[in-house]
Amino acid sequence: MSRAGTVKEITSTANPTIKAARALQARKARNESGLFLAEGQKLIEDALSVGWWPQMVFALQAAGSEGHQAQLAAKVRAAGSDVIFTNATVMEKLSRRDNPQTMIGVFDQRFTALNAMTGGTLVALEAPRDPGNVGTIIRTIDAVGASGLILVGPAADPFGVETVRATMGSIFHVPLARADSAQFGAFVARWQGQIIGTHLAASKDIRAIAPQEPQLLVMGTEQAGLTDELAQKCTTLTKIPMVGAADSLNLAVATALALYELRRPFL
Amino acid sequence: MSRAGTVKEITSTANPTIKAARALQARKARNESGLFLAEGQKLIEDALSVGWWPQMVFALQAAGSEGHQAQLAAKVRAAGSDVIFTNATVMEKLSRRDNPQTMIGVFDQRFTALNAMTGGTLVALEAPRDPGNVGTIIRTIDAVGASGLILVGPAADPFGVETVRATMGSIFHVPLARADSAQFGAFVARWQGQIIGTHLAASKDIRAIAPQEPQLLVMGTEQAGLTDELAQKCTTLTKIPMVGAADSLNLAVATALALYELRRPFL
Repeated sequence: MSRAGTVKEITSTANPTIKAARALQARKARNESGLFLAEGQKLIEDALSVGWWPQMVFALQAAGSEGHQAQLAAKVRAAGSDVIFTNATVMEKLSRRDNPQTMIGVFDQRFTALNAMTGGTLVALEAPRDPGNVGTIIRTIDAVGASGLILVGPAADPFGVETVRATMGSIFHVPLARADSAQFGAFVARWQGQIIGTHLAASKDIRAIAPQEPQLLVMGTEQAGLTDELAQKCTTLTKIPMVGAADSLNLAVATALALYELRRPFL
Repeated sequence: MSRAGTVKEITSTANPTIKAARALQARKARNESGLFLAEGQKLIEDALSVGWWPQMVFALQAAGSEGHQAQLAAKVRAAGSDVIFTNATVMEKLSRRDNPQTMIGVFDQRFTALNAMTGGTLVALEAPRDPGNVGTIIRTIDAVGASGLILVGPAADPFGVETVRATMGSIFHVPLARADSAQFGAFVARWQGQIIGTHLAASKDIRAIAPQEPQLLVMGTEQAGLTDELAQKCTTLTKIPMVGAADSLNLAVATALALYELRRPFL
């Protein structure tokens, strides 16, 4: 194991370390550094449970001097993470929240190579725009025991602050891959198993699909559903039954309903 | 039918009418006025389809001089709504968005009396905090053909801007009622039918429930699930099956999964 991390106290929002961490709220800085922020003791523990150690942990000083948080700070420090004790003002800046968590970790992003994504039940999302949807879907993939998520095309950043919050820790448990349209096309051409798309114009009820792994679930965008290009790559197009005046479902809801149907025999 | 509404052009963000409409972004002003904002032609058409006329409609002038939007503005004006043509700056202020919709309506809030809520399949949410969750659940209730939503205790405002956005128009189709804990207790005491709660500690799989209407689905808070007080009022406690490291599901996802199980024979 590496040497223990340093311990510092920083209480100025103008400090370069604080400014660099704050910058990770923006996608540009996350892309350039390959880092992201995860807030709260629960998420940090989720990360440690799978050996995903933070580079740095910010801890609120008042609470950090005692109890569970102090143990957690000591644990990550022993493993090589820097621990920075700070005040409520800095924590609010780091989280952009009025009532911030008492710990915030800075972690390395991890993506899985597209060709290493196997399953099981895999999910691919076409250009999802809403960070909350992507985070909620990662959480559901974890809960249902699916094997990972492929983000196809220009998607919301899975390591964005709002996305990571919505995962409730599942960001550390669900393999993530990225693909452009051509890469994904090559991936599905090699896929051994059914490829199920949901489509408002489909006639086959999702509940009539016989789940059989490996299977790949493909979901379209929030606004327009599956593009024709991706719809044509599916072996089966299905719809989720709806009545009433609503003409579609929220993407995270639709993905969850489809996933629970496809994983139904395994739960 | 009442006399036609007035038509005005207002392009100053300091105008009192604009300021009063902007104030509806805050819950206090919504509570005091009994009004709310709904953005976009689609939502305004959803409202008109059920005879829920706006008091006032703001329309972007550039787009309002032609085509579908002009027809819609003329239609609401003929029914008595005031139509205010304005510019992009005002529309951005009204919606707090960079790319606002081209129409925004000001509507009267409508709540259904608790005792008039019948079903069918009714949903009750205990003190939900997240506006996006409440809006998404209203959208799902519509899609699945359930009969309405009861908000129990201190809940996110169903007529908040973010909530209304997330309903995608279903705010105009789903009956809503409010209840404090005592009122809801009296309501469930009179309820003729099963009362199904989801609870992480329950052992009965939601898929093992025999759906039979009338039925009432009761969901707890995002943070802590059902309180003991409400759990005790349920005739059956069930869980949604989970594997993996996730220890819970997003509230809107869990509600959708439960609703699709309870409405399964009817879809």
